[in-house]
Amino acid sequence: MGGFDEVESYPVLPSKNVEGVCKFEACDVGMVMDLPEGPLGEERKKATFDWKLMRLNVEEPSYLRVKLAIWSFLESDPLFHSQPTVLSSEEEKRITAKQLMRIRESKFFNDVNGVSYDKKLLYLMALNEAVNTLSPSLSVKFALGVSLFSICVQNLGTERHSSFIKDVWQNKILACVAVTEVAHGSDTKSLQTTATYDHNTKEFIINTPCFKAAKCWVGNLGKQCTHALLFAQLVVGKQCHGLHVFIVPIRDPYTMHPYPGIIVGDMGDKAGLNGIDNGFIMFRKYRIPKDYLLNRTGDITPSGEYESLFQNPQQILGAALETLSAGRIGIMQESVCSLSVATVIAIRYSGVRTQFSNDNKTETSLLDYQLQQWRLFPFLAAAYAQRAFVRKFVLIYADTVRFSMNANEDTIKTVSQMVSAVHAIVCCCKALLTWTCRDAVQECREACGGHGYHKAARLGDIRANHDPCVTYEGANHVLLQQTSRWLLRAVDEVPDLDFDSARFPASELEFLRNFESNLSLKFSANSVNEVLRVDFLIEAYQWLLCWLIKETKQRLASSLDDGENAFMAKNNVQVFYAQTLSLAFAENTVLNYFAASIQEADLSLRPVLAKLHILYGLTCIQKHLRVFYEGGYASGPSLSKLTSEAILEVCQLLRPDAVALADAFAPPDFILNSVLGFADGEVYKHLEEAYTQHGGIAERPVWWSEIAMKSKL
Amino acid sequence: MGGFDEVESYPVLPSKNVEGVCKFEACDVGMVMDLPEGPLGEERKKATFDWKLMRLNVEEPSYLRVKLAIWSFLESDPLFHSQPTVLSSEEEKRITAKQLMRIRESKFFNDVNGVSYDKKLLYLMALNEAVNTLSPSLSVKFALGVSLFSICVQNLGTERHSSFIKDVWQNKILACVAVTEVAHGSDTKSLQTTATYDHNTKEFIINTPCFKAAKCWVGNLGKQCTHALLFAQLVVGKQCHGLHVFIVPIRDPYTMHPYPGIIVGDMGDKAGLNGIDNGFIMFRKYRIPKDYLLNRTGDITPSGEYESLFQNPQQILGAALETLSAGRIGIMQESVCSLSVATVIAIRYSGVRTQFSNDNKTETSLLDYQLQQWRLFPFLAAAYAQRAFVRKFVLIYADTVRFSMNANEDTIKTVSQMVSAVHAIVCCCKALLTWTCRDAVQECREACGGHGYHKAARLGDIRANHDPCVTYEGANHVLLQQTSRWLLRAVDEVPDLDFDSARFPASELEFLRNFESNLSLKFSANSVNEVLRVDFLIEAYQWLLCWLIKETKQRLASSLDDGENAFMAKNNVQVFYAQTLSLAFAENTVLNYFAASIQEADLSLRPVLAKLHILYGLTCIQKHLRVFYEGGYASGPSLSKLTSEAILEVCQLLRPDAVALADAFAPPDFILNSVLGFADGEVYKHLEEAYTQHGGIAERPVWWSEIAMKSKL
Repeated sequence: MGGFDEVESYPVLPSKNVEGVCKFEACDVGMVMDLPEGPLGEERKKATFDWKLMRLNVEEPSYLRVKLAIWSFLESDPLFHSQPTVLSSEEEKRITAKQLMRIRESKFFNDVNGVSYDKKLLYLMALNEAVNTLSPSLSVKFALGVSLFSICVQNLGTERHSSFIKDVWQNKILACVAVTEVAHGSDTKSLQTTATYDHNTKEFIINTPCFKAAKCWVGNLGKQCTHALLFAQLVVGKQCHGLHVFIVPIRDPYTMHPYPGIIVGDMGDKAGLNGIDNGFIMFRKYRIPKDYLLNRTGDITPSGEYESLFQNPQQILGAALETLSAGRIGIMQESVCSLSVATVIAIRYSGVRTQFSNDNKTETSLLDYQLQQWRLFPFLAAAYAQRAFVRKFVLIYADTVRFSMNANEDTIKTVSQMVSAVHAIVCCCKALLTWTCRDAVQECREACGGHGYHKAARLGDIRANHDPCVTYEGANHVLLQQTSRWLLRAVDEVPDLDFDSARFPASELEFLRNFESNLSLKFSANSVNEVLRVDFLIEAYQWLLCWLIKETKQRLASSLDDGENAFMAKNNVQVFYAQTLSLAFAENTVLNYFAASIQEADLSLRPVLAKLHILYGLTCIQKHLRVFYEGGYASGPSLSKLTSEAILEVCQLLRPDAVALADAFAPPDFILNSVLGFADGEVYKHLEEAYTQHGGIAERPVWWSEIAMKSKL
Repeated sequence: MGGFDEVESYPVLPSKNVEGVCKFEACDVGMVMDLPEGPLGEERKKATFDWKLMRLNVEEPSYLRVKLAIWSFLESDPLFHSQPTVLSSEEEKRITAKQLMRIRESKFFNDVNGVSYDKKLLYLMALNEAVNTLSPSLSVKFALGVSLFSICVQNLGTERHSSFIKDVWQNKILACVAVTEVAHGSDTKSLQTTATYDHNTKEFIINTPCFKAAKCWVGNLGKQCTHALLFAQLVVGKQCHGLHVFIVPIRDPYTMHPYPGIIVGDMGDKAGLNGIDNGFIMFRKYRIPKDYLLNRTGDITPSGEYESLFQNPQQILGAALETLSAGRIGIMQESVCSLSVATVIAIRYSGVRTQFSNDNKTETSLLDYQLQQWRLFPFLAAAYAQRAFVRKFVLIYADTVRFSMNANEDTIKTVSQMVSAVHAIVCCCKALLTWTCRDAVQECREACGGHGYHKAARLGDIRANHDPCVTYEGANHVLLQQTSRWLLRAVDEVPDLDFDSARFPASELEFLRNFESNLSLKFSANSVNEVLRVDFLIEAYQWLLCWLIKETKQRLASSLDDGENAFMAKNNVQVFYAQTLSLAFAENTVLNYFAASIQEADLSLRPVLAKLHILYGLTCIQKHLRVFYEGGYASGPSLSKLTSEAILEVCQLLRPDAVALADAFAPPDFILNSVLGFADGEVYKHLEEAYTQHGGIAERPVWWSEIAMKSKL
């Protein structure tokens, strides 16, 4: 098993340059509670590592402490206890609205504005993650209504808007963010809502020309918000100056009546997240004061002219970056949480459930089936890899924003590179992580058999609530185009990249350094052991990324040569090339960050982490066999055969550690909230509770007479 | 485009041997209604074929007539009109229970028992499909409560049970089928519910030893059924004679009170299908009369002994076959319907929606994006292929049952072969079809962007309701093992197979005929055109299936040689080999049936059908690249490169026909029930209705005071 002995040689990647990676102290172990005895006890004894050490390895201890505090707060209040039955969506909205009020009033925000920018960011992200694990509706409502709103106003507004930030943190107002229109989503340039300046009254007149331009899908708008952050085309005279952002009053906070001049309502039910009051709105020449324009990038002069204010480009870059990326990074965190929760449920259930027998005596544990291992362990590995990635990347993100905000003429070029890189990495990783979670939840649901379909298993709700993540805050397919465009540009800029400074994103683009020689790499392994190595993963991705860049460029060029216009030429290299490139880049980035984090882990944890790393890497590589053969990296049977065998071998090696690996990122039972996945492993006891702890199970239904036979005669 | 000109050379497969494939008459065209004018008009003009002819090609006209009649009946009754909002599951159960009563009382069952066995079967399947398209909960309740129950009693019972059949068709009783227990599903041999014979009273004592042996997931049991078809271990004296089936009274049909001696209740909510009252039940030494044993395969003698009655093995085979397979064939039909509905929604939406512009004037139709074509068209092709397969296979199934029921000593060996083949094909195709539908619904949901997440788009409900199909009536992963076992056996029986009689399953196993020479086939194409051919698909699958059989056998043998026991050895060849074999066999079977149906289609339809056939085939083949390279069928880049290019080329060729192809299997709007997919293409008009046609959208919520600020002071 060559690969696993060599964890010392794991490449040290981005973390070198980032402050804030904390090591845990011995005293931290105390906050990780023992797990209850039960049917999973034997499984836990098989583990080759200390799960409590692992718990502190997968999560920053100071943020774990925050999360534990929030979870305990939620459990202590009946308002946050879930209902066993499907609620009407009106009732779900009411409860979520009340929960939002309760959490806003909690102690968790007392000092939130008294700390530094990045401490606040990381704290809010930990909080968001903690709340999201229990209730995605609630965390989305809070994020849109409070944090994203205040970030946007802070970054795009000026001093005159500071009262809005104060009010939203003091629970006097609640916001929403209105961008998408009925007929335009990804193509924001084509949005049709206008804000026309009226110099006589010093007001903007907001107008919606038709239903297709109604703002829609706006969370908090349907029932509850008082203000909207509105994206609209700014018009002065007859000239349109493009999208700008406005604060628009929606409802009287005391009566909750919408103001005249707008048609606002709830959009109706969705496939999930029905605790959120997604709304639509149409403006009929609705007037707001001139000062409600967020005027950092442009403003109306006292004489009524439009004036662009681009004297501080680096600040603008930073602001734009934050506004765009913060939400997507939040989604990545939430995806990793959902992925983890689903994996915990399926692995613990598989550790308890037995089926079929070899000797007609002892039934076989589901975890002993090759098929079950292969279905679940790659997602366990993905959860570890992606969690490590997000944890490190958040720090790089905070670092980049800080750096960009203090930029000067000397650093502006570096800032610009960093900002583009953050955007490109967020785009492809948001797609990779949300799709991984989607696939994992479905596989976990199926791997739990029929019981996985029970509402009390929670997997159905996780699936329904996670689902919008693949299309909101940028549809995945569209986001991936941003990354490939950046990569195609980056390869031309290689000579300008300062790899040696090791400043972000140098290590992420390391594979470009030897572009030509990477292209001539060939797969040469002859044994499974040669494939079970980090070196192999690195080399395979070096070739893969370079070849996909080269091929995408060539196809683009030849399409243009054939007379295709640039727009269609770009569209016609997406399938199999540009899109694959972006996803492969995301995988490679995740793998590298994970590798770096293994390097920092306690020595006793590295062997099992190395197995997870290899398994995640090989699973990704297997998905690209098409490319490896098409591009000539491999030709004979070896690559296909050896990766398959290696995957099965690592799965088997991970078998004894599976339950402990799940334990190490499992939230407390109240938060996990699945009868199949509770820590005590008493699956059948909890199923019995689920069958019997709901209304009138053994009585005839109150509507019995509607279905009974009518007479004995 | 070599392949598409050669539709004449499509191999003629199973349909040769089956009666009942009807051709439509000119007068049938009249029942296909014109589609309304609207934004899709231009798209429809692009089609290269007559969609009404295609409508009658994809569906047996006589059954289409039945379906249209049922759909019209459903639309005419307000009880079947859906609610725009999420209902409490109690309310959903009440409405579905009432719908079930209404439909049982309808004219559609007046003559159902007056026709021949296979006419009845096909009629009930058409009816099930029609109802399922509107409401899966309702069709499942009917199937379990009436059709499956009556089929089982007819096949496993004797004359003494005929009153139950009469009663269930006369709406005097309603049944459920109780097999699965809390701790045992797929492993039916380990079920623990017992029926112990008491000769003193001539009764069976039904007992549930513990909660783990409670019957669960039983549809209709939670609230509504009066009788259960119970699978329990028959015990006489101290001896257990294995699983037998009993009719067990559950509730008084007049009062709906459960009888004493049982604990029965609703299981609680699920991730979908909440119109079904899935229940659990535990028996406390509950007594039923001796005659309630379905006694065709075994009975209690007058002296109180158990007697096995296997004097009529071919009848038993037929009965067992029907009981096992009818439900799974129903699921295949339902999957094809859900797949079709999802595809219609996404394709019509994509034909209306435009986004981004090349020239800043005309926005681009989503259907013009390579990415959108590649995401949707393979599922359109799968819908055509799988629909053609199910339509033909149902006839073979009916034929096999009929043949087996009239079997004699001369035909018993053939019957046995046919019965095993039906079982093996149903197992793998149930898995293939339900997984295809699962993936298609998800892709369609994402391809509709954010709007795909609205409840009124219906894709979320389709996903949630289809989901259990992958684990109920046999978990897919377990079913696939049945097929691979049969194939591994079949290859040894090749010398005994009478290929020339062309009796089922000869053509399905045709690829075994030249087993050794198939193994030496090599991919040799040098151009896209050589890949766009039926010959290529046939050859590739011949190699693929033979190689997977050979490899699975070898790995099994070498595992046994290494000292592994048979049970684990079998488990350890599932991933990448046995399971892949079963799925590939299912794909090949679907492709062959589809090819045969193209051969029977109107000449004007064959070119477009041939494109769909090739696209479905290439999409499947691309998923097996791993195997093609591992086994040495291909080595250089060509296979990978040419299949990719060919897929994109066929997608582009299908572009003009996409909307008309969707129209050709779209149900009426009332049944389709999706604002994104209505035939008029007025997506935005219907979205506006969805936003505004639900309760109190523009009012403040009735609970406004709970979230308002408390005072102006």
